[in-house]
Amino acid sequence: MAQSQTWQELVAEKKLRQQASIPKEWILTNLPSQSELNITEFPEACGLLSAKDIEITNTHVGGLLEKLASAQWSSMEVTTAFSKRAIIAHQLTNCLTEIFIDRALARASELDAHLKATGKVVGPLHGLPISLKDQISLKGIESTMGYVSWIGKYAERNAVLVDALEALGAVLYVKTNIPQTLMWPETFNHVFGRTVNPYNRSLTSGGSSGGEGALMALKGAPIGVGSDIGGSIRIPSAFCGTYGFRPSTGRVPYAGSVNSLEGQDSLPSVLGPLSNSIGGIKSFIQGVFSQSTWLRDPNVIRKKWDEDEYRLVEHGSGKKLCFAIIWNDGQVVPHPPIIRGLEIAKKALLAAGHKVIDWKPLNHTKINGTATAIFGAGSAMDFSTVIAETKEPYISSMALDQEDFFDEQPVTAAEISAYELWQVHKRKRDLRQEYLEYWLATASETGTGRPVDALISPVAAYTATPHGKNHSAHYTMIFNTLDYPALVIPVSKVDQVLDQKKPVHEFLSKEDQANYELYEPGSFKDAPISIQVVGRTHEDEAVIAMAEIVDAALKAQRSGLKHAL
Amino acid sequence: MAQSQTWQELVAEKKLRQQASIPKEWILTNLPSQSELNITEFPEACGLLSAKDIEITNTHVGGLLEKLASAQWSSMEVTTAFSKRAIIAHQLTNCLTEIFIDRALARASELDAHLKATGKVVGPLHGLPISLKDQISLKGIESTMGYVSWIGKYAERNAVLVDALEALGAVLYVKTNIPQTLMWPETFNHVFGRTVNPYNRSLTSGGSSGGEGALMALKGAPIGVGSDIGGSIRIPSAFCGTYGFRPSTGRVPYAGSVNSLEGQDSLPSVLGPLSNSIGGIKSFIQGVFSQSTWLRDPNVIRKKWDEDEYRLVEHGSGKKLCFAIIWNDGQVVPHPPIIRGLEIAKKALLAAGHKVIDWKPLNHTKINGTATAIFGAGSAMDFSTVIAETKEPYISSMALDQEDFFDEQPVTAAEISAYELWQVHKRKRDLRQEYLEYWLATASETGTGRPVDALISPVAAYTATPHGKNHSAHYTMIFNTLDYPALVIPVSKVDQVLDQKKPVHEFLSKEDQANYELYEPGSFKDAPISIQVVGRTHEDEAVIAMAEIVDAALKAQRSGLKHAL
Repeated sequence: MAQSQTWQELVAEKKLRQQASIPKEWILTNLPSQSELNITEFPEACGLLSAKDIEITNTHVGGLLEKLASAQWSSMEVTTAFSKRAIIAHQLTNCLTEIFIDRALARASELDAHLKATGKVVGPLHGLPISLKDQISLKGIESTMGYVSWIGKYAERNAVLVDALEALGAVLYVKTNIPQTLMWPETFNHVFGRTVNPYNRSLTSGGSSGGEGALMALKGAPIGVGSDIGGSIRIPSAFCGTYGFRPSTGRVPYAGSVNSLEGQDSLPSVLGPLSNSIGGIKSFIQGVFSQSTWLRDPNVIRKKWDEDEYRLVEHGSGKKLCFAIIWNDGQVVPHPPIIRGLEIAKKALLAAGHKVIDWKPLNHTKINGTATAIFGAGSAMDFSTVIAETKEPYISSMALDQEDFFDEQPVTAAEISAYELWQVHKRKRDLRQEYLEYWLATASETGTGRPVDALISPVAAYTATPHGKNHSAHYTMIFNTLDYPALVIPVSKVDQVLDQKKPVHEFLSKEDQANYELYEPGSFKDAPISIQVVGRTHEDEAVIAMAEIVDAALKAQRSGLKHAL
Repeated sequence: MAQSQTWQELVAEKKLRQQASIPKEWILTNLPSQSELNITEFPEACGLLSAKDIEITNTHVGGLLEKLASAQWSSMEVTTAFSKRAIIAHQLTNCLTEIFIDRALARASELDAHLKATGKVVGPLHGLPISLKDQISLKGIESTMGYVSWIGKYAERNAVLVDALEALGAVLYVKTNIPQTLMWPETFNHVFGRTVNPYNRSLTSGGSSGGEGALMALKGAPIGVGSDIGGSIRIPSAFCGTYGFRPSTGRVPYAGSVNSLEGQDSLPSVLGPLSNSIGGIKSFIQGVFSQSTWLRDPNVIRKKWDEDEYRLVEHGSGKKLCFAIIWNDGQVVPHPPIIRGLEIAKKALLAAGHKVIDWKPLNHTKINGTATAIFGAGSAMDFSTVIAETKEPYISSMALDQEDFFDEQPVTAAEISAYELWQVHKRKRDLRQEYLEYWLATASETGTGRPVDALISPVAAYTATPHGKNHSAHYTMIFNTLDYPALVIPVSKVDQVLDQKKPVHEFLSKEDQANYELYEPGSFKDAPISIQVVGRTHEDEAVIAMAEIVDAALKAQRSGLKHAL
């Protein structure tokens, strides 16, 4: 990087390089107009995808892995199909950052040759394309993370997760967009711009793994990797109608990825998968857990995939589970479609023979307060240090008009001393202790002899919002702070008839009033509705199993409804 | 606590209460004079212990558990014997803080009745007395932790570990002495005074679990619980010639115990056992791991005792292990007895058919530097906040003349901001990553096809030092910072003939020179010599198994030597 260049010049150069990395023959000239909001049907209609490309990209992970392992489909074919669809998605939503399809096809070709020569797959994810959030480093590829200052920062080695995924047989082909600093629940930065929601481009795709969310919704990847420090996997998953899993801390290797707030160890970001099927989530997690990554990342817990936990041995083998629904967190009442999503889930679970009770949230505001204090403890210094190098402006809002507002902004979070941080940690420790005891005490209410098996919670108090309106991550950050694994499941979509605005209720807080006022069904047209299934710390395998049960109940209910029609 | 009382008055009152808690008939009038340094033979000679008391207290944990489970010995008998011997130990070394033998005997009696009535033990530690470092809370008992300000602070509930130990059948009867702040490798505070080393009372028993070390050396407990943030279990174990284990973070529950530097989560203290046999260490760990304590402490990793790890499946089933010896850490050359201890271990392991190579320490000084920076980040504020209440003086040295020097001392550690702390965390993360990669790269040198299986390291650069001379914890803190489990094994004792001072070497550092100058065999008479066996993060089960192998090799060598004589 030449020192004399302005940040705008650096961005212009980087954008040219990005454009040049797109195969020319995949550049579309028939893109829908910006006023066309829901573009989810465009990829299959645009003419770029062959019938086989469409068949491949519509196949869930389980089917893809079977066809790849049996050489019915080559990795070249599968990688090409997803690459094409990813490039279409990018042209519709601006979801990609780094694009390295040549490299991916070379790898796919090697995998095909290996299978042909040996008759054996390299690993359980043999030949499967996987997209990566921008921060996950691949040797020789930039990890700008949307910071102008990091343009030209080519990774010197792979992240540990990249090595693990390649050992499993995966093909890596694109990286996806994020917000500046990663600490926003929407996706916009000065280098790559804004990612929009494929279901309604006037809405955000969420963040910080917003590029992944948009890509997934358009089936541009069978599995993607995001990161989640306060909801950054789950919010885009929910906003874009895909599955997404925030594992417990220390089970998926983070070493070698770049990050924001590095050294902030009190409430660590975790990597985890997004996928269009729950099977994709399981394949990813089971695969990564099999790789003994604690041998390569000292922060990974030495704990293999636990099949007993997956079989729900501690949850009555999953036969009659008791779920508890968080209807609201005591601070903000969710919008009508979110409540309807919870009701759909409740009905489906009851129909499947499970028990459903209400969850009274304990200290959610206080718990989220400790998270905010921890992130704010040094974030201003962190952000300003990074952006100082090229004087790119600090982004202080995700609103659309931000893009015209490029003056340098002060970074204003309150910094505290290490001793003061320790006091926050004490509060967090005590709140986690109380929450665990509170959960376990539900054994007297469930009728199963066990405490509540899993929580069912909104992912946010709203579906995808208009740009700049996603102001809170309280329904997700709570579970980062408690370190609970949580899996997002799509349930439905905003319905202009069913999801009418409700009469005014007694507001729980100022935020609740603002949230109530934000809602008009018309502003949230076609937005996906999702829930998250939440277990206790390190119950990752059990949460996947219980989410499968919830997902199957929802599917059975939908198919029952179809039959009834 | 009356606000008007001086700290000295508060201490005087507390000491009276402590004295009153000692059964009168066990107060000895025939104590050896203070000039008698090695008092390890006094307990059995003093006349207080019956022949059966002596037999019981000389029996290792495995034998005790067998006799207790089969009702050959009652818990009343066993608890009485260890209580008597603990009270003798206390009169010789000042090792106890809280004494609650009545309560213990009531519990023992209940356990005996249960066994009689049901024919079944309560758990695998049925009837076994276990001592606790002062900070581990029992409902209704003070947890002063040696702070005058905390006199009268009666615990409102049990620590999670206490509940787990009681569920396993243990009997709790005494708590043990610690230094003010816990952050010293010796043991002295204004409330309970100084604990001395039973092998040589002019030497320190080590710290911060120094009361445990002294108690163990005099066989006043079959198992004791200490805590280790920089060596606080291992240093007293080594100085007092007993076994001691620092587990990985997050495997033994800490919740509910009081602590110093609370909220300092970067480099947490861990609880772990001391015992006079390695079997005692294993019984404790296997028992605690069986208790699913993650259901009661959110910081415990959901990871059961792993029998495969204990069987050394990843270490060639333990058949031909490769150990690497740390002869010095690149900063301070250990004293002659410590080097001799390592040589003894090397010879024993070679004779047992294992391989032994030299370990070249990587960045030990830098790694320890991150630990010091972390502790110092807020310690001054932490200590001064606690002592302010009663104006007890801050202890700024462990030297004997400290006791005459009660003026208030300033607390001088450098405090840093949360952001600066994050920068230290980044260094620590990178250093841990490098160390792991360095260790794994030894696979090319071991000849076993595996990396080095375990390290053999000094526990300190010296055996127990004269009071106030234990200035560094570098040989232990390194493994806290790396979060490696480490188990201390006694090897020998300082020998006035074999452990002559060596000729001057080229000093590695100023500390090295000071350490060289400190040594004269006469000043370290009878001090135990120990080593520690170190594995990688969460290899707790494997470290216990490998330490058993080392211990057996040492015992075989000793018995071979006896045969040869």
